[in-house]
Amino acid sequence: MILCDVGNTSYHFLDGDVSYKKDVKNFDPKSVKERVCFISVNAGVKEALKELTNWIDLSDFVDKNQYYETMGVDRIFAVEAVLNAIIVDAGSAITVDVVQNGKFMGGFIYPGVNAMSATYANISPALAYSFNFECDLDIMPKNSQDAISYGFLKPLHCEVTSRNLPIILTGGDARKFKKIFKEAKVDETLIFSGMKKIIKKANVC
Amino acid sequence: MILCDVGNTSYHFLDGDVSYKKDVKNFDPKSVKERVCFISVNAGVKEALKELTNWIDLSDFVDKNQYYETMGVDRIFAVEAVLNAIIVDAGSAITVDVVQNGKFMGGFIYPGVNAMSATYANISPALAYSFNFECDLDIMPKNSQDAISYGFLKPLHCEVTSRNLPIILTGGDARKFKKIFKEAKVDETLIFSGMKKIIKKANVC
Repeated sequence: MILCDVGNTSYHFLDGDVSYKKDVKNFDPKSVKERVCFISVNAGVKEALKELTNWIDLSDFVDKNQYYETMGVDRIFAVEAVLNAIIVDAGSAITVDVVQNGKFMGGFIYPGVNAMSATYANISPALAYSFNFECDLDIMPKNSQDAISYGFLKPLHCEVTSRNLPIILTGGDARKFKKIFKEAKVDETLIFSGMKKIIKKANVC
Repeated sequence: MILCDVGNTSYHFLDGDVSYKKDVKNFDPKSVKERVCFISVNAGVKEALKELTNWIDLSDFVDKNQYYETMGVDRIFAVEAVLNAIIVDAGSAITVDVVQNGKFMGGFIYPGVNAMSATYANISPALAYSFNFECDLDIMPKNSQDAISYGFLKPLHCEVTSRNLPIILTGGDARKFKKIFKEAKVDETLIFSGMKKIIKKANVC
């Protein structure tokens, strides 16, 4: 049995211990003959996969009562994976979700690295710097690059650490954020853990 | 004597107690015959005003040692206006500067309301909400509009309030931010106060 987390740009597979990605644009899901348990934030792919009987949508097996309707299914499965934590999923958006005693307490959405970088550059060419993840967040900046790096990173750091919960970093930019959340655990397969938990609970796949 | 704070889009004048704005695109500074003390973050206008002897650039009279070279002159004059405060200047960018005992301690730059709104919408059409400034920042959100409103506002609120300094709000969106910084003072003429202080100190205009 293969697991697959479908995003807007790629299929992210986990087959045993081996994880790999395929581009949404040119990958044909029909080419997989094995049973695949998947979730998809990509509405187009989700719809297309309904035709394929060996692709099983795990989102049908989650108790959605504690979540809200427009909440991304990837966030839901990350939350399902943990008991007590604040999850920082750093992708094109950074979703931050709080889980206490296995209960979803709510969450917020912050722009991701690339989106925020473009934002500063669009405000003014004078702010078109790349972010400095080594920037000292204990010192108020006195140069432009640190002024935007601190502006992007420190408010997020302040809010996330204020919860006094174990921090779990996941998503494509997890390792970058490990530089500022030094106490955090990086878990790049968190969503897959959530999927495995649901598979076991619902006895599917 | 008239004061003028030139931005990227408008000339902001203060004549006695009367303040008014003129569009950078179609206002001719030659039409003002009186003496004008000004600052300008707009490099093109700053250059053009060098030709006009009745327009006096106040940035020449500030001790720049405590600032950094690429720091906007509007931020410098806001800092000059206060002794102990954290200044939140909410415009196209939100600049946040800390002043203690009249000394500039550093500052950071956060995206403004319009810039951040466009950022979320660009990440995904599912995030194209306007910000809810009435959003309760004490509760982790469980709906999409609050998830992005909280994501924009709460990290900034967390970082600004952590300083335990009086908060001064200025800039075009100052009144919006008063809703989340309830304890803050709104001072829409803060930069003009800084300009008046420099005029007095340097005995110009």
